[in-house]
Amino acid sequence: MISQEFVNKIFNQEKKFVSRAITLVESGSDSATELLKAIHKNTGKAYRIGITGPPGAGKSTLTNQLTKFYRKQNKTVGIIAVDPTSPFTGGALLGDRVRMSEIGVDPGVFIRSMATRGSLGGLSKKTIDAADILDAAGYDYIILETVGVGQSELDIANTTDSTIVVLVPESGDSIQAMKAGLMEIADFFVLNKSDRPGSESAIMALRTILMMRDHTENDWLPNIIKAIASENFGIQEIADEIERHKTFLEQNQMLVKKRAEHFRIRIKEIVELKIKENLWRGDRSMWLNNSLKKVVDGEESPYQIADLLLSNVIFNSTK
Amino acid sequence: MISQEFVNKIFNQEKKFVSRAITLVESGSDSATELLKAIHKNTGKAYRIGITGPPGAGKSTLTNQLTKFYRKQNKTVGIIAVDPTSPFTGGALLGDRVRMSEIGVDPGVFIRSMATRGSLGGLSKKTIDAADILDAAGYDYIILETVGVGQSELDIANTTDSTIVVLVPESGDSIQAMKAGLMEIADFFVLNKSDRPGSESAIMALRTILMMRDHTENDWLPNIIKAIASENFGIQEIADEIERHKTFLEQNQMLVKKRAEHFRIRIKEIVELKIKENLWRGDRSMWLNNSLKKVVDGEESPYQIADLLLSNVIFNSTK
Repeated sequence: MISQEFVNKIFNQEKKFVSRAITLVESGSDSATELLKAIHKNTGKAYRIGITGPPGAGKSTLTNQLTKFYRKQNKTVGIIAVDPTSPFTGGALLGDRVRMSEIGVDPGVFIRSMATRGSLGGLSKKTIDAADILDAAGYDYIILETVGVGQSELDIANTTDSTIVVLVPESGDSIQAMKAGLMEIADFFVLNKSDRPGSESAIMALRTILMMRDHTENDWLPNIIKAIASENFGIQEIADEIERHKTFLEQNQMLVKKRAEHFRIRIKEIVELKIKENLWRGDRSMWLNNSLKKVVDGEESPYQIADLLLSNVIFNSTK
Repeated sequence: MISQEFVNKIFNQEKKFVSRAITLVESGSDSATELLKAIHKNTGKAYRIGITGPPGAGKSTLTNQLTKFYRKQNKTVGIIAVDPTSPFTGGALLGDRVRMSEIGVDPGVFIRSMATRGSLGGLSKKTIDAADILDAAGYDYIILETVGVGQSELDIANTTDSTIVVLVPESGDSIQAMKAGLMEIADFFVLNKSDRPGSESAIMALRTILMMRDHTENDWLPNIIKAIASENFGIQEIADEIERHKTFLEQNQMLVKKRAEHFRIRIKEIVELKIKENLWRGDRSMWLNNSLKKVVDGEESPYQIADLLLSNVIFNSTK
């Protein structure tokens, strides 16, 4: 049971209780669902920013500087660093977290790392739940930072209002290759460490790809902003671009539409996860286990067994 | 409708029809399911090998050399190169494919690349379906090659009999970090490019981690094999280790158990994908769309809407 007292402490932005609430949503328990239902009416006020890019692009440094910038404007910031823990990129993020300890002690900043290996679907659900907690707690900006290694950056883009893709000049070679995925999710690009060689050609490669996209006059065109996050260069420009994108979305009623679409994706995911849980409880799992010998022996195909399992799930029409 | 003639041409290992069959399973259509049901009784004879590792570890070169080795023994080989198309690693694989053209013209070798961005779940299903086609076509060995970037290598390990994790000396730094994931899936390790500096310390780091694992006397202990795939060094040892692992699995009735477990995971995935399809057809999607405004306005939480959607899905018990 979730007490109104607990909910109020979250609404009052009491860090200890905000932290406890996120731990609760990480558990995915029924109380977590109850809490998320209870706080929903207080969400929707925060502006959600996604920061993604390859390992080593300087995402954490940029998050760090952007947070300091917002703090100088007296805005509060909640940060969720999502680590899909790729077996080959692991490790690196820990150092980034340590670097962030400077802003972590600021009472107007909340930082949380979330990592789960092998269940990206579940991770994105919990990340969004945690963002809701921070939103209800009244943080003005919520930054979701994730290393882009396939699926996770798409999941995160499906929950943020503005998505920033951070690249470095060395990413130049792969810019052609990443056309499909990142071009769709980037509201703008940051070319970090832009004092390094290859900076101008990376920007030209990006521009070329951006220009080839279909667009009409009223479309948002992603900008490319040069930055050196470690020297605090370009941070003002990034914050300005976020505001420009926010204003664009608001003026075109697109913020509401974007958020509705995000809720649609999220509700579907919640429903699907719940169905999976129900599906494999009890006798259906047992029946499946008892059928496996016939499949291994070649008597029945996996698809025939699946058909039988499906034949007793009934979808009534929605009233 | 799938004709018996088509099925027979697959059984006869006619490349053109094997290729057509894989294109069909990639479509995911009802005919694909029909075909997979029809060929199932002829599967289970091939030995399935997974090769995974970080970008640049030399997986394709190793696949190439191992294939040539098997061909000298008059064994046929089917290769599926899975490319989860990470936005940041993309590109690289294309070159690898070109390199493989040498073995691709061999009538006893079948090569296919499969890539789908943003639907890893669906990709692994199709990869396994394609492996079934190659199995039914009578290829002796099936090699599933995938770049390890999070989820895909786990999916692949869930369908192969032996999984090889390929590393290079430079991977040393991340070996500590990858404990959890890759240790579970590796039946053995290949340290490729082992003439490079750092080779011995990478092996020691791996050994230390392997020794810390819980194990009993009868467990399989993953070996570490040194190789320089580009110079054909270590290939015999890799092939020997695959045979040793195969014999181990067979002697302990573990091959049958492992395959049964893989079928269990696969059938669950087929059922879940099918349920998703049924779930969001027609009026349920419409009802969801009509509910979104209330969610955006804060009146109802996504979890409340999910509860309502779930209330009319009924799970009958399995006869």
